[in-house]
Amino acid sequence: MKTNGILELPDDSVGIVQTEYYTFAAPPEEMRLVSGRMLGPVTLAYETYGKLNGRRSNAVLLLHALSGSAHAAGFNSADDLYPGWWDLYVGPGKTFDTNKYFIICSNVIGGCTGSTGPASIDPGSGSEYGLSFPIVTIQDMVNAQYRLVRHLGIERLLAVAGGSMGGMQALQWCISYPDMVASAIPIATSASLSAQGIAFNEVGRQAIFRDPNWKGGDYYGKTKPEAGLGLARMIGHITYMSERLMHEKFGRRLQNADLFGFNFESEFMVESYLHHQGIKFVNRFDANSYLYITKAIDYFDLKADYGSLAAAFEKVTADFLIISYTSDWLYPSEQSREIVRALRAGGIHVGYTEIESDTGHDTFLLDDRQTQRNISNFLRSQFEKHG
Amino acid sequence: MKTNGILELPDDSVGIVQTEYYTFAAPPEEMRLVSGRMLGPVTLAYETYGKLNGRRSNAVLLLHALSGSAHAAGFNSADDLYPGWWDLYVGPGKTFDTNKYFIICSNVIGGCTGSTGPASIDPGSGSEYGLSFPIVTIQDMVNAQYRLVRHLGIERLLAVAGGSMGGMQALQWCISYPDMVASAIPIATSASLSAQGIAFNEVGRQAIFRDPNWKGGDYYGKTKPEAGLGLARMIGHITYMSERLMHEKFGRRLQNADLFGFNFESEFMVESYLHHQGIKFVNRFDANSYLYITKAIDYFDLKADYGSLAAAFEKVTADFLIISYTSDWLYPSEQSREIVRALRAGGIHVGYTEIESDTGHDTFLLDDRQTQRNISNFLRSQFEKHG
Repeated sequence: MKTNGILELPDDSVGIVQTEYYTFAAPPEEMRLVSGRMLGPVTLAYETYGKLNGRRSNAVLLLHALSGSAHAAGFNSADDLYPGWWDLYVGPGKTFDTNKYFIICSNVIGGCTGSTGPASIDPGSGSEYGLSFPIVTIQDMVNAQYRLVRHLGIERLLAVAGGSMGGMQALQWCISYPDMVASAIPIATSASLSAQGIAFNEVGRQAIFRDPNWKGGDYYGKTKPEAGLGLARMIGHITYMSERLMHEKFGRRLQNADLFGFNFESEFMVESYLHHQGIKFVNRFDANSYLYITKAIDYFDLKADYGSLAAAFEKVTADFLIISYTSDWLYPSEQSREIVRALRAGGIHVGYTEIESDTGHDTFLLDDRQTQRNISNFLRSQFEKHG
Repeated sequence: MKTNGILELPDDSVGIVQTEYYTFAAPPEEMRLVSGRMLGPVTLAYETYGKLNGRRSNAVLLLHALSGSAHAAGFNSADDLYPGWWDLYVGPGKTFDTNKYFIICSNVIGGCTGSTGPASIDPGSGSEYGLSFPIVTIQDMVNAQYRLVRHLGIERLLAVAGGSMGGMQALQWCISYPDMVASAIPIATSASLSAQGIAFNEVGRQAIFRDPNWKGGDYYGKTKPEAGLGLARMIGHITYMSERLMHEKFGRRLQNADLFGFNFESEFMVESYLHHQGIKFVNRFDANSYLYITKAIDYFDLKADYGSLAAAFEKVTADFLIISYTSDWLYPSEQSREIVRALRAGGIHVGYTEIESDTGHDTFLLDDRQTQRNISNFLRSQFEKHG
């Protein structure tokens, strides 16, 4: 048994890992963003698990969703009670098997967990960027990650993989750097966010904008807009679950009573759950980053950026495994099938699995055996082909 | 052609109508609420269209949804640009044909458009109730409407009809006053609100609670919590539309530009639409009423109140027409089918139509020919049977 000082860790845990930081694009060599604005220096937080092999052919890049971080697996310190966000998938013998693969998880620019974002110090002004931080796109996030991957001495990734916004990054990687990606695993994602998705993101942003503590984004060192950010998270969480999952998990059960209180206290279990999610989130996430990252998701549109999906995928050479979930109403399967059709029309090899699931959009974060088995098998075949 | 002074009105408009008010339960004869608390005096706003026939057998009671009012059809003044909320369904020759039926539309207690609610003056304190207003339930709303219907000299309603929360009231009418209801038309509704529905209502309430202008509900005569109420409405509106309708109506089109602005202005059409809905709403609705009415919807649960649906429907004698919409994800058809099964198991005559529709929960408010034809035919057969 391994231990992190508090918990006995199972043998398939990556154990204690340190987040690392790579800084590049120092002035005058700032990074040019899609908007035309320049950003630099740029720091990306990342973690790695497993070892790069001699041929440098076993590197897998994990890409996270809206609220994720570089910390995908294991524990950052002996005091941590919870492991990284994809710990169920990353470790010795797990789906992303750290005995075989060199796993990299990269954070995104615009984020708030070690990478350059609105809470970072603007070298021009000497204080936090706040809303003067430039709008970043998924393409910008990937361009920054490209610098990191090259810095790690990797010329070709065995795979890029991620769910939701992570899936958008995986698609963008194959398009922006086709020679660097042997295979891709976009999960529960889309080639462009739907009108409904934009709508939910906008009400989340409005919850933050309307919190008087937000102060135009200039709240660092002052009271944080926790009410707004917490509310945005509550809204988001409803969309990550299916109606069925909410019914089974909470139904109409009350939290601490047998009878209605006839007041406005939160009394249904589902209300308590959402409040808990909101409170947990404001302790670890920056409200301005929530604005920037949701905006990057809203802007993602391969059809508009390249004229058509066919044009977007023209130079893509990667093999694909695409996964969607029947109960995911935020990124419905039809949006994955649209990607599958466009890739296949371009002669790309695509495996597509629509997994029967009651657990909604966030299924890829859960201990879902079908997701794990599909990815495992696909990675093994890719390693046999390219490794 | 009729006219309201501004517009030329088509012949199937009910024209100019006045909202009327019925006050009852003056102290010491206050109304006892389900919570055990007393409320009085109680005023209900209502409108009527058409004429009660000699046998008093042609009265149809319309029941509105969360944000509705007594003003179902026609215009209240010559300055009104828009007619009542169900004007597409109520008028001479329309679905609820005012040449044949005596149509009553009743507001609800807890509301803010002429009926007793949190914005009313508490006779005990001499100032607005605010949060000292008692929590009301759908059952309480119906009990108040019962007093109004008796006041109008009606012993038996030909039909009770409504969508969403209006459908809940229709169901409750059949259960609470079985001898007074010949038939019922619950549309896009449920025997109990789902966990997901409670979740959306709670984030709407939290948007209001977290607006500093809300001040614990004590904002009358001061700045209103418009930011919170507007945000609650934006959240609600997403749930009233289908993903497909949002896609067709707005897609990813921009409102006033060809290119992204790379800032946080609302630029997608769907964002502008939601903002517009939020702004329109705060001008006509009271934030505290939003809290009370959503809570009444959350509490509605025929299974819990009566032990089972079978027990709830035990004394029901009404014939039913139940309508649901394939694209309604807030009140999915399965929730209507559950009601249909329970009623049929009890030997009740039920017609059920699941209408193929892309327009989501709010389809019953639109000019939907199938909804109109189904209701029309059902009403005609009921009038032949009971009229």
